[in-house]
Amino acid sequence: MSENIVHLVLARVVGAPEGVKGISLFIVPKFMVNADGSLGARNDAHCVSIEHKMGIKASPTAVLQFGDNGGAIGYLVGQENRGLEYMFIMMNAARFGVGVQGIAIAERAYQKAVGYARDRVQSRPVDGSVAGSAAIIHHPDVRRMLMTMRSLTEGCRAMSLVAAAAYDAAHHHPDADTRKQNQAFYEFMVPLVKGYSTEMSLEVTDLGVQVHGGMGFIEETGAAQYYRDAKILTIYEGTTAIQANDLVGRKTLRDGALMPKAVAAQIEATEQLLAQRTSAAAAVMLKRLSAARLAFVESAEFIAGSGKGNPNAAFAGSVPYLMLAGNLVAGWQMARSLMVAEDKLAAGEEAAFMSAKIATARFYAEHILTRAGGLRDAIVEGADSVTALPLEAF
Amino acid sequence: MSENIVHLVLARVVGAPEGVKGISLFIVPKFMVNADGSLGARNDAHCVSIEHKMGIKASPTAVLQFGDNGGAIGYLVGQENRGLEYMFIMMNAARFGVGVQGIAIAERAYQKAVGYARDRVQSRPVDGSVAGSAAIIHHPDVRRMLMTMRSLTEGCRAMSLVAAAAYDAAHHHPDADTRKQNQAFYEFMVPLVKGYSTEMSLEVTDLGVQVHGGMGFIEETGAAQYYRDAKILTIYEGTTAIQANDLVGRKTLRDGALMPKAVAAQIEATEQLLAQRTSAAAAVMLKRLSAARLAFVESAEFIAGSGKGNPNAAFAGSVPYLMLAGNLVAGWQMARSLMVAEDKLAAGEEAAFMSAKIATARFYAEHILTRAGGLRDAIVEGADSVTALPLEAF
Repeated sequence: MSENIVHLVLARVVGAPEGVKGISLFIVPKFMVNADGSLGARNDAHCVSIEHKMGIKASPTAVLQFGDNGGAIGYLVGQENRGLEYMFIMMNAARFGVGVQGIAIAERAYQKAVGYARDRVQSRPVDGSVAGSAAIIHHPDVRRMLMTMRSLTEGCRAMSLVAAAAYDAAHHHPDADTRKQNQAFYEFMVPLVKGYSTEMSLEVTDLGVQVHGGMGFIEETGAAQYYRDAKILTIYEGTTAIQANDLVGRKTLRDGALMPKAVAAQIEATEQLLAQRTSAAAAVMLKRLSAARLAFVESAEFIAGSGKGNPNAAFAGSVPYLMLAGNLVAGWQMARSLMVAEDKLAAGEEAAFMSAKIATARFYAEHILTRAGGLRDAIVEGADSVTALPLEAF
Repeated sequence: MSENIVHLVLARVVGAPEGVKGISLFIVPKFMVNADGSLGARNDAHCVSIEHKMGIKASPTAVLQFGDNGGAIGYLVGQENRGLEYMFIMMNAARFGVGVQGIAIAERAYQKAVGYARDRVQSRPVDGSVAGSAAIIHHPDVRRMLMTMRSLTEGCRAMSLVAAAAYDAAHHHPDADTRKQNQAFYEFMVPLVKGYSTEMSLEVTDLGVQVHGGMGFIEETGAAQYYRDAKILTIYEGTTAIQANDLVGRKTLRDGALMPKAVAAQIEATEQLLAQRTSAAAAVMLKRLSAARLAFVESAEFIAGSGKGNPNAAFAGSVPYLMLAGNLVAGWQMARSLMVAEDKLAAGEEAAFMSAKIATARFYAEHILTRAGGLRDAIVEGADSVTALPLEAF
């Protein structure tokens, strides 16, 4: 017996009465279903080809043809004209979910790279800590790559969990004002979780291949697949530019950067807690977090100020602004994590785990948060050169 | 008639006399050759498998087996024990050549992305310059991606040509001192041409896929192939880390950063020429080039200072130092190009071409050179956190 397949189709109703001209959602089955539940006649819905994709090959993408041989039968879902609205219920959840996909593939790439770096023996370490050839994890640049992978992944994971907690509070907190605040915060976070975590996954899976050297380029090793698979994440459910448009348009321009400034104020409060500490790690984090926050606020103000008068300037820096916001907000979580870890370490809890948290947070501060200044310069001082070249000169 | 295949093999001579224990270079043919030039007996040299690679599939990588069925016959090339030395004749040329491969694939990715961005119609431009949906090249972020691709490619191409000119002068200039200076400059440039241009090609081919959106992930479009192919370039003929070790070890530590400082002095001379100009583009370039040069000099001094006392710190920032040096030296060429273009524009020569050169150089200054500060911070202030995490904590 064939199994049935059901397609969810967004379509305009051809020849529909006035007022039903919008896009509606339909269920279109492969086989019609008889009254007794058994499969009936073949519907006029056909897969005419499977795309050859660079990655995610376990998830086939098909070209479907509906109604070319007499007409396909579809069943309306919900009400007419509300298809796009229904689609966005899926899309809004999917954006957060794709961000988490980025974090997941980055974590897997990191684990695989660590495993290889422990096994693969090549050359003497520059510090002479091993007499002969050593596993490549002893080489400083391999450590730098692994720490970059680790800290980016950890920062994005923390950011996504903070967003998820806000989503829960937005739906289930007993206080209406708290629900509203959390909803606004969650909506600000979604383009960061989607956009920053997926762009981050490209950097991490690239480093994953790089740690493997020539073996990374061989498909059997597995590192190359992460690199190929990850590239869809910055594209589907809204490209990085679409996330950045959302961040600039709805979440910065609409209310004069109110939400970005509210988030910056929360980060400043974290800085005040860092300032009360005496550790070197807290001092380094304070310095870098504070600089990144100021870079972000200047960028948000520039975008809000350009807004209506010069929309090209506001949107020219949209993706760098998203990358700066994601970099900062993930770094903020690393700062919070650092303080919790310091306290638990002082209380004698899980010393190795807490020390690793502190070392990873410090690396994020020194190697990732330090990218903020360059992004700010490009956004605030480089907007005009983005659109200066005439179209015909490309 | 079968064609013959010739393998070049580096091997130690088993059972060789004392003094011939090093690696020698051999030619190992697939078929022996008869006295009359016809093919003779099959040699014991066999291809036992072809690797499944992520890219460059037109260039098969094979696992070869020599002598498992009785012994393969090889012919010594040159003298015994000098195999590695001969190999480096190929390798030194190949490193420059692979850098040029990076520039070539980046240029092709750029051209393809421009073509798609002119054709693909989606959404209204934010500045209202087109009433309805427009080709995506009208959208600021698409312009930003294309300008990033264009300016990175142009900067690296200029850098590679300057290196090539130095190579010519090192070999053919009549004056011995000039030959020597050019040779030293060329040797400093090789890791930048190889390392920076190939890392740049990863960014450019990624953006090439991104401009195509979902179509970029479909292999038939062609953008994905550049992304897959480019990844070998940061690996073969010495990974980026190997180039960076060369830059740090032989070209910075060995003589107390003499060569990096000599290059910085040349860049400072270019800044003085920029300072004599009145254009906004020259002022912007001066500001960014000068900041990037200072960031580079501080980094070189930090590395030279760490050197023997703390080799882990010197090498922890090796790849960021290479990226900073490449970013700066390519930006320096963009500055020189900007001045030539301004002069020719003033003289009425090819206005459209010269204006495009100026716009591209300015974009490089504002969006690429601005990355220098973050790299400096990571190198100079972030060295310790690279190796702080204990091996067992990964």
